[in-house]
Amino acid sequence: MVEIDGKKVKLFALSANKPLAEEISKWANIPLSTANVIKFADNEMSVSIEESVRGCHVFVVQPTSTPVNEHYMELFIMIDALKRASAASINIIMPYYGYSRQDRKSRSREPITAKLIADMLQTAGATRVIAMDLHAGQIQGFFDIPIDNFPAAPLLASYFKKKKMKDLVIVSPDHGGATRARSFSRLLGGVPLAIIDKRRPKPNVAEVVNIIGEVRGKTAIIIDDIIDTAGTLIAASSALLKAGAVAVYATATHAVFSDPAIERINDSCIKEVVVTNTIELQKTCDKVTQLSVGPLLGETIIHLMKDEAISQIFNRMEED
Amino acid sequence: MVEIDGKKVKLFALSANKPLAEEISKWANIPLSTANVIKFADNEMSVSIEESVRGCHVFVVQPTSTPVNEHYMELFIMIDALKRASAASINIIMPYYGYSRQDRKSRSREPITAKLIADMLQTAGATRVIAMDLHAGQIQGFFDIPIDNFPAAPLLASYFKKKKMKDLVIVSPDHGGATRARSFSRLLGGVPLAIIDKRRPKPNVAEVVNIIGEVRGKTAIIIDDIIDTAGTLIAASSALLKAGAVAVYATATHAVFSDPAIERINDSCIKEVVVTNTIELQKTCDKVTQLSVGPLLGETIIHLMKDEAISQIFNRMEED
Amino acid sequence: MVEIDGKKVKLFALSANKPLAEEISKWANIPLSTANVIKFADNEMSVSIEESVRGCHVFVVQPTSTPVNEHYMELFIMIDALKRASAASINIIMPYYGYSRQDRKSRSREPITAKLIADMLQTAGATRVIAMDLHAGQIQGFFDIPIDNFPAAPLLASYFKKKKMKDLVIVSPDHGGATRARSFSRLLGGVPLAIIDKRRPKPNVAEVVNIIGEVRGKTAIIIDDIIDTAGTLIAASSALLKAGAVAVYATATHAVFSDPAIERINDSCIKEVVVTNTIELQKTCDKVTQLSVGPLLGETIIHLMKDEAISQIFNRMEED
Amino acid sequence: MVEIDGKKVKLFALSANKPLAEEISKWANIPLSTANVIKFADNEMSVSIEESVRGCHVFVVQPTSTPVNEHYMELFIMIDALKRASAASINIIMPYYGYSRQDRKSRSREPITAKLIADMLQTAGATRVIAMDLHAGQIQGFFDIPIDNFPAAPLLASYFKKKKMKDLVIVSPDHGGATRARSFSRLLGGVPLAIIDKRRPKPNVAEVVNIIGEVRGKTAIIIDDIIDTAGTLIAASSALLKAGAVAVYATATHAVFSDPAIERINDSCIKEVVVTNTIELQKTCDKVTQLSVGPLLGETIIHLMKDEAISQIFNRMEED
Amino acid sequence: MVEIDGKKVKLFALSANKPLAEEISKWANIPLSTANVIKFADNEMSVSIEESVRGCHVFVVQPTSTPVNEHYMELFIMIDALKRASAASINIIMPYYGYSRQDRKSRSREPITAKLIADMLQTAGATRVIAMDLHAGQIQGFFDIPIDNFPAAPLLASYFKKKKMKDLVIVSPDHGGATRARSFSRLLGGVPLAIIDKRRPKPNVAEVVNIIGEVRGKTAIIIDDIIDTAGTLIAASSALLKAGAVAVYATATHAVFSDPAIERINDSCIKEVVVTNTIELQKTCDKVTQLSVGPLLGETIIHLMKDEAISQIFNRMEED
Amino acid sequence: MVEIDGKKVKLFALSANKPLAEEISKWANIPLSTANVIKFADNEMSVSIEESVRGCHVFVVQPTSTPVNEHYMELFIMIDALKRASAASINIIMPYYGYSRQDRKSRSREPITAKLIADMLQTAGATRVIAMDLHAGQIQGFFDIPIDNFPAAPLLASYFKKKKMKDLVIVSPDHGGATRARSFSRLLGGVPLAIIDKRRPKPNVAEVVNIIGEVRGKTAIIIDDIIDTAGTLIAASSALLKAGAVAVYATATHAVFSDPAIERINDSCIKEVVVTNTIELQKTCDKVTQLSVGPLLGETIIHLMKDEAISQIFNRMEED
Repeated sequence: MVEIDGKKVKLFALSANKPLAEEISKWANIPLSTANVIKFADNEMSVSIEESVRGCHVFVVQPTSTPVNEHYMELFIMIDALKRASAASINIIMPYYGYSRQDRKSRSREPITAKLIADMLQTAGATRVIAMDLHAGQIQGFFDIPIDNFPAAPLLASYFKKKKMKDLVIVSPDHGGATRARSFSRLLGGVPLAIIDKRRPKPNVAEVVNIIGEVRGKTAIIIDDIIDTAGTLIAASSALLKAGAVAVYATATHAVFSDPAIERINDSCIKEVVVTNTIELQKTCDKVTQLSVGPLLGETIIHLMKDEAISQIFNRMEED
Repeated sequence: MVEIDGKKVKLFALSANKPLAEEISKWANIPLSTANVIKFADNEMSVSIEESVRGCHVFVVQPTSTPVNEHYMELFIMIDALKRASAASINIIMPYYGYSRQDRKSRSREPITAKLIADMLQTAGATRVIAMDLHAGQIQGFFDIPIDNFPAAPLLASYFKKKKMKDLVIVSPDHGGATRARSFSRLLGGVPLAIIDKRRPKPNVAEVVNIIGEVRGKTAIIIDDIIDTAGTLIAASSALLKAGAVAVYATATHAVFSDPAIERINDSCIKEVVVTNTIELQKTCDKVTQLSVGPLLGETIIHLMKDEAISQIFNRMEED
Repeated sequence: MVEIDGKKVKLFALSANKPLAEEISKWANIPLSTANVIKFADNEMSVSIEESVRGCHVFVVQPTSTPVNEHYMELFIMIDALKRASAASINIIMPYYGYSRQDRKSRSREPITAKLIADMLQTAGATRVIAMDLHAGQIQGFFDIPIDNFPAAPLLASYFKKKKMKDLVIVSPDHGGATRARSFSRLLGGVPLAIIDKRRPKPNVAEVVNIIGEVRGKTAIIIDDIIDTAGTLIAASSALLKAGAVAVYATATHAVFSDPAIERINDSCIKEVVVTNTIELQKTCDKVTQLSVGPLLGETIIHLMKDEAISQIFNRMEED
Repeated sequence: MVEIDGKKVKLFALSANKPLAEEISKWANIPLSTANVIKFADNEMSVSIEESVRGCHVFVVQPTSTPVNEHYMELFIMIDALKRASAASINIIMPYYGYSRQDRKSRSREPITAKLIADMLQTAGATRVIAMDLHAGQIQGFFDIPIDNFPAAPLLASYFKKKKMKDLVIVSPDHGGATRARSFSRLLGGVPLAIIDKRRPKPNVAEVVNIIGEVRGKTAIIIDDIIDTAGTLIAASSALLKAGAVAVYATATHAVFSDPAIERINDSCIKEVVVTNTIELQKTCDKVTQLSVGPLLGETIIHLMKDEAISQIFNRMEED
Repeated sequence: MVEIDGKKVKLFALSANKPLAEEISKWANIPLSTANVIKFADNEMSVSIEESVRGCHVFVVQPTSTPVNEHYMELFIMIDALKRASAASINIIMPYYGYSRQDRKSRSREPITAKLIADMLQTAGATRVIAMDLHAGQIQGFFDIPIDNFPAAPLLASYFKKKKMKDLVIVSPDHGGATRARSFSRLLGGVPLAIIDKRRPKPNVAEVVNIIGEVRGKTAIIIDDIIDTAGTLIAASSALLKAGAVAVYATATHAVFSDPAIERINDSCIKEVVVTNTIELQKTCDKVTQLSVGPLLGETIIHLMKDEAISQIFNRMEED
Repeated sequence: MVEIDGKKVKLFALSANKPLAEEISKWANIPLSTANVIKFADNEMSVSIEESVRGCHVFVVQPTSTPVNEHYMELFIMIDALKRASAASINIIMPYYGYSRQDRKSRSREPITAKLIADMLQTAGATRVIAMDLHAGQIQGFFDIPIDNFPAAPLLASYFKKKKMKDLVIVSPDHGGATRARSFSRLLGGVPLAIIDKRRPKPNVAEVVNIIGEVRGKTAIIIDDIIDTAGTLIAASSALLKAGAVAVYATATHAVFSDPAIERINDSCIKEVVVTNTIELQKTCDKVTQLSVGPLLGETIIHLMKDEAISQIFNRMEED
């Protein structure tokens, strides 16, 4: 039994991203405890927790990527089981937060599913959530329990800095991402910005992809939080090249990669797509580089158990 | 806009059982309102409710059969949308309650998923649940909102009574179902009972299927609440014939029919399997007879809106 | 002050079953702390807790037997006082759960009092409940706090095993108890089963007590969870003897023994009635044997404080 | 079915004060609906509600006098049954609020039972409480639901005014009642006040009953909210006569009259004790006059259903 | 008493913006009910509601502008009073949501005050909130009660359209506002966009105000949700002129106008600042044009009471 | 980092009473941690907590004196920040409880603001409140979390005892304070009591200040819980002198001292006004003596962290 600062700690992986859980386990030096997800003939699930968790601080790794509904139900059921088994605290390591894009009503009678998920996690019994690059920072306010929201940008920026590329321009693929692009540019030393501006001149006329800002002769890095089908990304990269960019890279925290993302990326003029492993990739290709958030999340467990400020994590990790 | 007793009423069907929703709609004379379940590329869902529900008493038909997790998430999201759209009440017609068999901890560290579901329905915003033959009546106590639990036995018994079969014996396929079998026998005029008793004489020795009660020369009707893979049912029917029963019928409220249930039933010596349509069948065969609970559920909506006692429903339906 | 694994522990007895509390105290080696129940002239009660409980893990022994309403109100008031006095946790040892038979609506407009009790215990401030043989396992799902539900069957079976009786048959006094009887039979090595089947051939005709299964020439042990007025028990034992049983024993976890239970047992043909001491007997007779659950409950306190799995308790107790 | 302003209204009496319920019924012209309290052999209770309450505004009359615990549990169970039976609102007419004197911690580790009761009423499902002369007005703040707190003083004062007694002094039997005495004096036109001041000159020396204020030659009316065992009242009246008062009357809202209150009153020098019927008297004597609060409470139901301000009730009642 | 569709409706104004409340009152044809805010010598407040609200749907107008803490406490206290006075629903018309900019943790140990406010409004008893241009749409997800969030953009755009200005460019004063600027541009027929990009080339070097997008020869309209001290606005307008813009206008929903906003605007090269009256201006100047949201909010009350879809409001208002 | 009994403890002062916080800090030997209250241009506030509080037991000193609304909002925001920063417990040292006089509805449609405050403290995340001389002891029942309510009377009485004054009479300035005066008299050895009785003989006739009890030739000490504008106090002291008292002192726990309290006291015939420092005085004069509650509150922190009974505090402090 691992104890940190006198607290019993257990780490479980559900089925969404076992390789990430193993990296966390290695970094934090906490073995993965055994919990099996059982599927019955009718597709109902249960969980079978093979070790006592009474009085333990339990961490459960489950980024809620596709199949998102299965992953959430698995997680809710696991939390219920842990609560009834008298865990001291139930900490959900959910670096990818499924449904985070449904974070407000943009039309009448829309749900706010990201809030519903927050409510259900708390109803089930979660006592803390550890997330990364939430689609909107305000999702933290959907919770009454503590929620940490780590940025992947330092990790991504550090990778690009090592490439020592020149004449960069950071590009936001839409208006909503302008602030993210601005922060990323700052991490790279204050390189210029551009924003992709799509608009439809008249109804029933094709959308025009416009670029606000100067890209000619520059190497563009498109930054987003999520790459889903990669449609937006591909359109942006074409527009950038047409506007005179000399090369296009892309980077994002969460590699959702719904079909046909990989095919599109492979066929595109993008040089490299740099993502993290918050989501386990089902498919990939040579252009995709995956950086691991395992050390960051493993370090977080240790900090939490030692009651150390989370803000010190990046410092310590650089030392290591 | 349908009004009953001065109350605006709307009826929606999610994706689990549209044919049942249509029968309810016809019987209650309330047209189905339009709500579309949207699936995004990454399998996240949303709902699109095409009509205002402000101030309306909304009924949503969604028995949570397989794929159970998809059906539940769809339902939770729909409820959230209805709540935020100011529905006056949100009534869930869920004649089959997925996860109802996980209604208590039988081992350490087990979840009680049926309770978790009850909590999540209430967290999302449901104000009433209408169920049928809950796996355990105690599930009503999992709710703080009103929940109705209708029996299908009168419907099923009435079907068998019309057959005017003689020398019947009602058989419970296990010990837990003995009370259900006793009630069913009463509806058929007090015919005798038998119980299938499986036991394993020693560890690692094959299970023996024993019959408590007399079945020789009789026509057996095996009754259960749920038929899942039909394994238990088939074993019971073989044992009954071996013990001298002259014919075997089976009946149940919920036809889960996980593979290979239909194949097993088809290949078995069972004459007929009588079930209701709480679950929409994906596959069926000639031996399966499905009775509709649509009239009962439609009538329930009318009673609820008129503030009439639910207990009068069976009377009125017999008159009709 | 007793400390277990660094946690301060206090044990209190309210007025329902002080002898049991003393046995628990002895086994767990935790002295009973002093709390007096005060009755005012108008029958209002208060509690007077004579020792500080600040930061302590408090266990309160109060099986809610008759007078059930007094015992519950006493318990609720005690919990409120402990909560306001800053106890670290409030654990209710309630091996008999009064009102547990009101666990679902069997008719319109019935309360579900067992759920109401669960809600009120949690509202008052209880953080854990320790129960035995709940009338229905689903009552666990009435709680959001952890609840343990210990079986007394191993204790009762072990008593009968020592008698080395032969040609046994385990008898359930009604259909609802068939599963319980099946488990008990398994603990005794897989002896056969029978079920008492009462039915009324026609309205206004006397109920017939029928036996499903074979009892001739056998020694019957009737098993139930609760013996209340013993009416059912007596009827069952007569029927068993009439059907050729050579002797009848009875066993149950909870000896409610409402009048005239003791008289009936004494006057009956039952050889022995084996019960536990979850309820303090107000009256008894020679035929009644009471086995103590004190060691089991005392051991539970120790396990809980040491964060050990409860499932190990039976093992350890056998060693002792 | 009675409808007031388009709302269906039902009135139930539990067992604490049926005569008061009948007076309310008569005044409000709402027949008493039938609900029976069932007692089982083991003293557990249930309620049997014989009429549908679906969509009805239900009023339940239950002042929680002795046996207070039975009366509260009866009430909680009734509320649970009404909630699950879909009553539109559940209004508790509880003119006497048992445990209201336990309204704060006066020593370490005391419960605040009056708050616990408030929490439990709300947990069970009550939506409004109608009380009279709460022991402390702050008890209103224990509730999140609306609670009305009617004074009986106008009723009691009106009775004394009709007697046209002269040279009155209003006496508070202790310091806590000084404000109440001041208000009562105002209702009688501003007559003088006195306060009984008990103190113990030294430890182990008998308590001295002192009178602050002038009573010589006057007719004293001692006013309190509750008369329990009447000990304080008798001591006060003796002291008043000894100090020169010419006659002593007493008045109070709630006639708890725990033994030996009636004997003490009968044997005392008090001329008359004027109380209301919030509590049904088990015993009485010639000196006791009981005034009915039935009209006030009946009128309240009508006002509530008509959404009229409660403050108009006293006016309207005077007109009638 | 105003009734809409059979519902009693009352409208109250607290002290933040009485002129707006009067406009709402006029448009909706509901007189303002009287509620006075009382200030005691020690600055504690109370509210005095002069009319019964029992059974009424109450609307309270209180945009929580400066002094924000006074305005919120006033509002919370008013809601508590309305809840205890049995209002049927409590609808807060809060077109300006104070503290909405504190909607997430941007550093360790920051509060999320916008969520705290949402929790406190609900704790106090609010049942609906009507807002305008929330600083982030996600704030809707902070609530479990329905919340409407109206855009002022159609009103503002319509004002500019009437001016028939040519060669427009819509300017976002920072990256976070790019999406808002894009929507506003769409309402004006798809005019081009520019974004102000502030960055600091090196630490301790002055911030450079850069413009992404083309503004030369154009008339710029800077759009924001809130104008606070107008510092950002002034810096942006200077940069725009320097970059060749021929004229600069500004528009925003919420005119917070903290000192020295008015002085800055007056002294600036901005031609006109177009805002709404969600906040009552304490100071103004000739360059400021205030458009009224009173008709929109008045119409909303009517729609809510008639259970009509809110989405129809803009249509109907254009007809009027 | 201070640890007491293995628990990490931090002490913060908000802006209401920093000198008191420093005394507490000194006595408890816990340095004040740094938290700055930030005020933005529009008067919105935030808090900036400069040290990690993860896993710490945090005490926040904030008596909610004038400006009460600012002080409460500051406190709520601080609590939210601490909760989201994972403090182990959040203990509010609030010796003066603003709005405590609004503790019940005395008229229709009044708020119960003291309850609202209790709800909002708990909603924000407070886990314990430490108060002194709550205006009504029942306010403890407004909380579900533990709340301590210390009396200042021993401190005040001890000061007067040292003066060895003779022929004392303790005076309550109104009827509501009679019980408080009685307790204070007991602490001074059982000296006599008097009560100021104001009444208006007829409507529109000036109020007459009457004294119940004997004061001629005596030195009066008027005791109250709060001195606000000192109007009541001055009237009482004049009446006492007119009735023959030889000197008048006053004492109270909470020195609200709204204008013109200090002027009135200075100009009055009162010899000395003895108060505590629960509230930081903005103005004072020679007649005012302030006693410190810092040692008491500092000692309380230590007791709480050591899980020692609070009732031992007075003993230990006398020894020191």
